[in-house]
Amino acid sequence: MTPYHAPLRDTRFVLEELLGHTSLDLPGFEDTSPELLDAVLDEAARLAGEVWAPLNLSGDRQGCRRQPDGSVTVPDGFIEAYQAYAEGGWNGIGVAEAMGGQGLPEVAASAVQEMLHGANMALGLCPMLTAGAIEALSHHGSEALKARYLPKLVEGAWTGTMNLTEPQAGSDLSRVRTKAIPSADGDHYRLHGQKIYITWGEHQAAENIIHLVLARTPDAPEGNKGISLFLVPKFLVDDNGALGPRNDVTCASIEHKAGIHGSPTCTLSFGEGEGAIGYLVGEAGRGLNHMFTMMNEARHKVGIQGIGVAERATQQAFAYAAERSQGRAPGSRGGQPAAIIDHFDVRRMLLSMRSRTDALRALALYCAAQMDIARHHGDAATRDAAQARVDVLIPVVKAFSTDQAVEIASLGIQVHGGMGYVEETGAAQLWRDARIAPIYEGTNGIQALDLAGRKLARDEGAALTALLDEVDATAGQLADKLALSAQGAALSAGADDLRAAMAVVLAAGRDPAQGADAVQAYATPFLQLAGHVLCAWQMGRAALAAEAALADGSDDQAFYRGKLASADFALRQWLPVGRANRTVIEAGLESLATVGLDH
Amino acid sequence: MTPYHAPLRDTRFVLEELLGHTSLDLPGFEDTSPELLDAVLDEAARLAGEVWAPLNLSGDRQGCRRQPDGSVTVPDGFIEAYQAYAEGGWNGIGVAEAMGGQGLPEVAASAVQEMLHGANMALGLCPMLTAGAIEALSHHGSEALKARYLPKLVEGAWTGTMNLTEPQAGSDLSRVRTKAIPSADGDHYRLHGQKIYITWGEHQAAENIIHLVLARTPDAPEGNKGISLFLVPKFLVDDNGALGPRNDVTCASIEHKAGIHGSPTCTLSFGEGEGAIGYLVGEAGRGLNHMFTMMNEARHKVGIQGIGVAERATQQAFAYAAERSQGRAPGSRGGQPAAIIDHFDVRRMLLSMRSRTDALRALALYCAAQMDIARHHGDAATRDAAQARVDVLIPVVKAFSTDQAVEIASLGIQVHGGMGYVEETGAAQLWRDARIAPIYEGTNGIQALDLAGRKLARDEGAALTALLDEVDATAGQLADKLALSAQGAALSAGADDLRAAMAVVLAAGRDPAQGADAVQAYATPFLQLAGHVLCAWQMGRAALAAEAALADGSDDQAFYRGKLASADFALRQWLPVGRANRTVIEAGLESLATVGLDH
Repeated sequence: MTPYHAPLRDTRFVLEELLGHTSLDLPGFEDTSPELLDAVLDEAARLAGEVWAPLNLSGDRQGCRRQPDGSVTVPDGFIEAYQAYAEGGWNGIGVAEAMGGQGLPEVAASAVQEMLHGANMALGLCPMLTAGAIEALSHHGSEALKARYLPKLVEGAWTGTMNLTEPQAGSDLSRVRTKAIPSADGDHYRLHGQKIYITWGEHQAAENIIHLVLARTPDAPEGNKGISLFLVPKFLVDDNGALGPRNDVTCASIEHKAGIHGSPTCTLSFGEGEGAIGYLVGEAGRGLNHMFTMMNEARHKVGIQGIGVAERATQQAFAYAAERSQGRAPGSRGGQPAAIIDHFDVRRMLLSMRSRTDALRALALYCAAQMDIARHHGDAATRDAAQARVDVLIPVVKAFSTDQAVEIASLGIQVHGGMGYVEETGAAQLWRDARIAPIYEGTNGIQALDLAGRKLARDEGAALTALLDEVDATAGQLADKLALSAQGAALSAGADDLRAAMAVVLAAGRDPAQGADAVQAYATPFLQLAGHVLCAWQMGRAALAAEAALADGSDDQAFYRGKLASADFALRQWLPVGRANRTVIEAGLESLATVGLDH
Repeated sequence: MTPYHAPLRDTRFVLEELLGHTSLDLPGFEDTSPELLDAVLDEAARLAGEVWAPLNLSGDRQGCRRQPDGSVTVPDGFIEAYQAYAEGGWNGIGVAEAMGGQGLPEVAASAVQEMLHGANMALGLCPMLTAGAIEALSHHGSEALKARYLPKLVEGAWTGTMNLTEPQAGSDLSRVRTKAIPSADGDHYRLHGQKIYITWGEHQAAENIIHLVLARTPDAPEGNKGISLFLVPKFLVDDNGALGPRNDVTCASIEHKAGIHGSPTCTLSFGEGEGAIGYLVGEAGRGLNHMFTMMNEARHKVGIQGIGVAERATQQAFAYAAERSQGRAPGSRGGQPAAIIDHFDVRRMLLSMRSRTDALRALALYCAAQMDIARHHGDAATRDAAQARVDVLIPVVKAFSTDQAVEIASLGIQVHGGMGYVEETGAAQLWRDARIAPIYEGTNGIQALDLAGRKLARDEGAALTALLDEVDATAGQLADKLALSAQGAALSAGADDLRAAMAVVLAAGRDPAQGADAVQAYATPFLQLAGHVLCAWQMGRAALAAEAALADGSDDQAFYRGKLASADFALRQWLPVGRANRTVIEAGLESLATVGLDH
């Protein structure tokens, strides 16, 4: 299998040349030196490439096993690789210094996450879930809970999980039935119920596991408003922070999945005995809201995860295509054998993979930078505008990056031919691993509804319109350059389509005769269109940056010419496919209305 | 897992209402009764649904095992299920009566194949490869070889394999190195070499296995013209047809694949001892040509296979969506729980699956009917025109059906949510199984080159232009009906795009400055465009048929309304995405030219 090399050069191009972070010149990070950012990226690349990546294929093959005693064994080397990560302080890089973290900006943390997921997505899930627990706890936990649990979670000595889904409650969490019964003294609750799809729900990689669990108190109303959030540790923790007895939570089984075999996906039973001891996090009845504050960031991380896998698939396909020889060299009929990278049909696949991965990364890191501004900028209006932009971008980054990641990984298989279908190359594993990302953390259909329903409706499209004004500005800058004017025209046409589609969706949402069904019907093509246009926008910016670097006589000609080709492909060969979604939306929902009537 | 029901109603709609086979009124089949066709389809549906389908999931889980003695064990029940198929006479349904088959037309055989692959693709591969061996042998084998081997192959008592690929010779078969040394008496050859990816290369489901093998004689020239085709039986066959000693061919290993676990994919070693005894099939030096005569049909069968899996994924997604309840019913906010089929975003996925499967089936069976005409029509000019049409359609049916099948199966996973990613539902298996089909029997990139290179160039697009004239005629008929005029306009626009794209490809091929590289660069988007337009054409015809049936007051209102919705989706929501490929082609190949220069 091809070794994985974290995409340092590509990442720096986005951070420095597209986002302008030649240093960490983000609000709140003025004191952080550019040297530190460089060192962080270099070290993360080393951990990802040398420690995590070599375990990816063996982890897939070996998988996880639940032992008769209910413990779960993860693949060989995973515990050590996780501990190398925790001991290196990586778990806290995006966490505020006040909470014991390193307080690096989200853009930097996201770049590091991409490397780790590209190296080993199954292992990367463990800290990803811990990050969710840290978020939920730090925003909503009492001071006492935070003092007892946060430090160990931040340092990675303990890991965290999210316990949402039950068999009857998947996308619709209002159906959660797990019960939480308060103790007589009001100090804690006893939980009874079963949760499914709990990522890294049981393992031996850390001393303790902190489960965050949605459950209902006995007197709670039906539906969303009866759900509260509880912290349930695997091992109870005493007042001095020492580990006490095992809590009443057990792993009943683990799933046999299509991919991410190295990540144990558990069914957890709470309260098979006298009840699992849990502590209320935040307000009773506001469990779903508390989860949702954290979900935005988790969704961004899932998008990043998709990009990591896409990058690895792209690297592997390029390496294979450069080495595999089949057919003859073009221009040398009957002559020299050719590496398949010389065949233009293979080049199309490779460039499509590279271009899309570049574009998704640029958009996801742009979103991360907006998250930093929303959190730390001194001016409230600027913070609010950035947050509004983040809210629109998150469902796009999650859904579009993950859908594309599956397609990119599938192209990676295709470049390998028959070798792609046998498991020893690892190409098929990337495709199988990536396939979960459009499903979890809110299916991509849910993301589309979030965008086309909630996010558009609440400001009548104002935040997206503001983004589109910037897209138009980029299109104008491209049009002004002779060599990039065709790309500018393509981008401008894409922006027009997105505006037109937005008008259809907003009008449908306001029309009582169409209403929510229409918004649902248009949601996925709308998100697809938005993803294509916003990615193309970033690639327009990349083309301008590359053109400027070449005009300045950069030594790195090959790199910048590659970025120009990547941008050209995105704008003139990928965007047109996405633009068709305007036509799809304009076709209306009539034919969808009949589905299922004959069943 | 949802049971599989062969799509009898949908298949009859295509055969009877789109292709006009109310009886088997094809040339060469005038004596076959419509009752026979009905009985064949019903019986095939029973075999597929009751015998083959229940073994699909267990076959995936159990997989194949190579034993220390070199024998290969297939999953439990597969041998019996194969034998039920052979004993039922299914192996010969498409084979001429003169050769011991039942001599049914290709459209009927194709419909049956779809059912069997939908039921169990891994098992379906065994007879699919046998069919290839029968084709090759019946066209090119000597009378003596045919007499000795064909009857047992036709009845399915023996199975066949195709031995093409070697580690260094995949898409480029000119690199085959396996040696065939003639015996002193000229009676046979001794083969030495290794072949990989041999489907059902070793198993115990039949008494003998007949390997067809590409190899080089000692004095043969380099390249394509030095390759000959040999028949190498697993057990030698004596003059009376009795099985003799084991030949010198052994299974060295089997592959660990992403899917089709129930189909053993073998590495075969020929001549580890004194050489495997083989017999020349056809002319020395014409092995590749002999293979290619047969490959057209094999490619059609792979397309059919994709459609079988797509159909099963669609059925399963509909069944799950009708039963799984999440969220609230539209129009009943805060009220009744809803089956997810009531959510319009889910309906979009389901209709997309159904519409695409319908369209692919209609095109593949249209192609099969043209194959029947090309073989059996009394008029030579009609035969030639049909063959020219088949030649254009085959790469489209193979590549487009299989690419789409992977996407359809992926949507099937998505409809299932988290349940789609765990293996117990079988949704992920369909996706994993389908993924091989774009790779084998000529990768889809090779299909695209065949279409955009060979098939277009040799008649300057005449056969495709003739097809497009029929597309235009259908568009005109749609435009004449008020209720279908928007669909007519969409189809007409698609046909215009395909003509324009064809002009670009033909011009590029003639231009010495662009040449073969340009044709390669445009091949895949060209095939995608052709697939969308030709499928949309068939769905236009389906809309006309459904509209006519409804106007005639058919009792089957729900079925025909479903077909109208399916056609509307294909023409107005799916075709637009495909039409973008014209823009892609018009963007040129400049950005592709730089790929790999920085590597």
